[in-house]
Amino acid sequence: MSGQGGPKVRLGVAGLGTVGQGLVRLVAARPAFAPGGGQVEVTAVSARRRDAARGVDLRAMTWFDDPVALARSSEIDIFIELIGGAEGPARESVVAALEAGKPVVTANKALIAHHGAELARLAEARGVALRFEAAVMGGAPAVKVLREALVGDQIDAVAGILNGTCNYILTEMEAEGLDFARALAQAQGLGYAEADPSTDIGGYDAAHKIVILAALAFGGAPDWSRAEVEGIEKVELIDIRLAGALGFRIKLVALARRAADGVSVSVHPTLLPLEHPLARADGALNALFIHAQDLGELFIQGAGAGAGPTAMAVAADIADVLAQPVRPVFQTPADRLAKGAPAPSRKAREGAYMRLMVRDEPGVVAALSETLADAGLSIDSLLQKRLEEVAAVPIVLTTHPAEEASIARAVARLGALPCMTEPPRVMRIARI
Amino acid sequence: MSGQGGPKVRLGVAGLGTVGQGLVRLVAARPAFAPGGGQVEVTAVSARRRDAARGVDLRAMTWFDDPVALARSSEIDIFIELIGGAEGPARESVVAALEAGKPVVTANKALIAHHGAELARLAEARGVALRFEAAVMGGAPAVKVLREALVGDQIDAVAGILNGTCNYILTEMEAEGLDFARALAQAQGLGYAEADPSTDIGGYDAAHKIVILAALAFGGAPDWSRAEVEGIEKVELIDIRLAGALGFRIKLVALARRAADGVSVSVHPTLLPLEHPLARADGALNALFIHAQDLGELFIQGAGAGAGPTAMAVAADIADVLAQPVRPVFQTPADRLAKGAPAPSRKAREGAYMRLMVRDEPGVVAALSETLADAGLSIDSLLQKRLEEVAAVPIVLTTHPAEEASIARAVARLGALPCMTEPPRVMRIARI
Repeated sequence: MSGQGGPKVRLGVAGLGTVGQGLVRLVAARPAFAPGGGQVEVTAVSARRRDAARGVDLRAMTWFDDPVALARSSEIDIFIELIGGAEGPARESVVAALEAGKPVVTANKALIAHHGAELARLAEARGVALRFEAAVMGGAPAVKVLREALVGDQIDAVAGILNGTCNYILTEMEAEGLDFARALAQAQGLGYAEADPSTDIGGYDAAHKIVILAALAFGGAPDWSRAEVEGIEKVELIDIRLAGALGFRIKLVALARRAADGVSVSVHPTLLPLEHPLARADGALNALFIHAQDLGELFIQGAGAGAGPTAMAVAADIADVLAQPVRPVFQTPADRLAKGAPAPSRKAREGAYMRLMVRDEPGVVAALSETLADAGLSIDSLLQKRLEEVAAVPIVLTTHPAEEASIARAVARLGALPCMTEPPRVMRIARI
Repeated sequence: MSGQGGPKVRLGVAGLGTVGQGLVRLVAARPAFAPGGGQVEVTAVSARRRDAARGVDLRAMTWFDDPVALARSSEIDIFIELIGGAEGPARESVVAALEAGKPVVTANKALIAHHGAELARLAEARGVALRFEAAVMGGAPAVKVLREALVGDQIDAVAGILNGTCNYILTEMEAEGLDFARALAQAQGLGYAEADPSTDIGGYDAAHKIVILAALAFGGAPDWSRAEVEGIEKVELIDIRLAGALGFRIKLVALARRAADGVSVSVHPTLLPLEHPLARADGALNALFIHAQDLGELFIQGAGAGAGPTAMAVAADIADVLAQPVRPVFQTPADRLAKGAPAPSRKAREGAYMRLMVRDEPGVVAALSETLADAGLSIDSLLQKRLEEVAAVPIVLTTHPAEEASIARAVARLGALPCMTEPPRVMRIARI
């Protein structure tokens, strides 16, 4: 592209929400940020409404009503997609830019999780870069670390707290003793959660991100269809308290892990030992824990969202586009992505946390433990704790790791016991 | 270099200690680790003793008695320097490889901290890469993150726990109630500390590393002459206990920070608030905390040493040499390194921890606080705690941040008070 003293590198930015505004400000403040890459300038922009109040001066930039026209324009050297969404104008404009032979930098996790393989093929066929550091963990360089820093190693597991909204809600529930609905309302009041929070609290945002990280960590294309997704809507304060009494904290954990028969990719409310670094990532933080054979453990923590960190990640991608030749978009060249992908795992073994609300009768613990033993589950710890606010007695227990099918069988049988006053509440315990 | 299906990339490895052996094993196990970079092979090696027992098979490799001859050999494409030391064969062989136009990957922090600018000039003049990810934090990608991921941002501070030996000793002192000498002996017994531990416990190893990180974070060349270095030899168990009572943990903190008048680079035993992520990096872990304007905070933690992590970092550098064009060795091209460097700071302000052993007499606290006020220091917290094992009464206090000169003045005056039974013990408190 452009070297020292060469012409300016012209960015076309589609989408002028908080991240787009942050990028316009960053580039205006530090136009020479790319080492050895010359000067960078936002020369053209596109957004839904031209007249929205944005607090950034767009007068020197060419305005495009249509992001696809911007993507194809000869007035830009790099197309920056900050529209969002897996379909519609985001997808169309990225395809248009790649087809026009322009490098693309995007912060769009849904787009990459759903269409990453197709876009990678297109980018590599045209010999241009497609980069998405800002799609995962805001300013923390999760994509770069997995794509470039660990190539000499074999990664076993990647576990992340990847959604700041959920993490804020869970942190507030524990710290302030709020129930889920009140913590969500508080998060919405502070702007940490959207008016329609379902993408965040349903676990889909975190799932988009772990699908992308799994592709980078284990090879293969991002495969949205294989992600198992559970949100935090059913996490109750009582479980947070009882997990705490057993030495755990409940987090929404996005996990991609190599098992004997393949790789599992999932998002679940999960118990983490209190001393685990992921358990300590509180509030709106994002965090990633990687386990690899030679490296051992690596932990990264930072702001997962926000205009500053996310725009910074976009800028790092722009600098890499200017400094680096085109690497494969994922670890494997796109024409071999399908073949190289590990099989999904059906044999991952997890420990389980179970909360069983029972009538206070003789023989209850014996009945429970017999049922568990029959299903082949072994109890790791058990706590019976009368709580003032509830009539039934909660018995919480954790099991040693077992296959999902065994846990499901045990839960079905437990639910049918006459002593139970409500269905068992079950969550995973992380071994990462 | 070599593309997919091209000829093998030939590595020449000088130094066959644990890291060298780890690299030979890694390359043998995963010769295609570099994405799109083809096959890699160790074809030639050099070490002090040819007949040492190493547990790796060197028979297919060409042996060189002289690492300089290996560095110049036409039988290798990339020179890997794992000898160590700022001078002698390490420096001579790296210079020889660069002069011969060969890319160099090294794990040698002393070499880069002392001669980084000179070597960068040579590498950039010849248009070849000089990379040193393994020199800092073993497998945790501190160098890559500072060199590539944060280029769009302005970094304010980089604070690290960069020496696993010191961190292990301090962790054991606190956890087991050991004094420094016993914890050091235990670390030596377990192989965590060398027979001559002075480079580690004197803070010099951590200083080499923070000098390198400061060059990457703030521009300019690594400048060993400006590092302020204090080791952990004088950290006493009583200070660890009293700091804990005030809500702090003592760590050997390597710190590079931008102040109004320049950048300060230092290594000191430092009090960190217990809830700070750096305070929780225990045992032989390394950790790095970065604060930047747009990003906010970023925290990275991993194994700081060992054959596996360090060899993995060398492999990542090899993959980057194969995948990337040559970037400037530091953030600034080497011919501009001298001009671009920020001035050293003389105005950094730190809070201080002071332990004052005093005779139990009336008026002591008044005398102390008067002395501090006269020196312009303001007390943040004060704890007087009689300990069974000591006759004098320890008074520990923390001050609000102040310039170093004021603190030194206050300490001199306190030391001269008649109520003091021993000289004041002073440590920094981190504001990072």
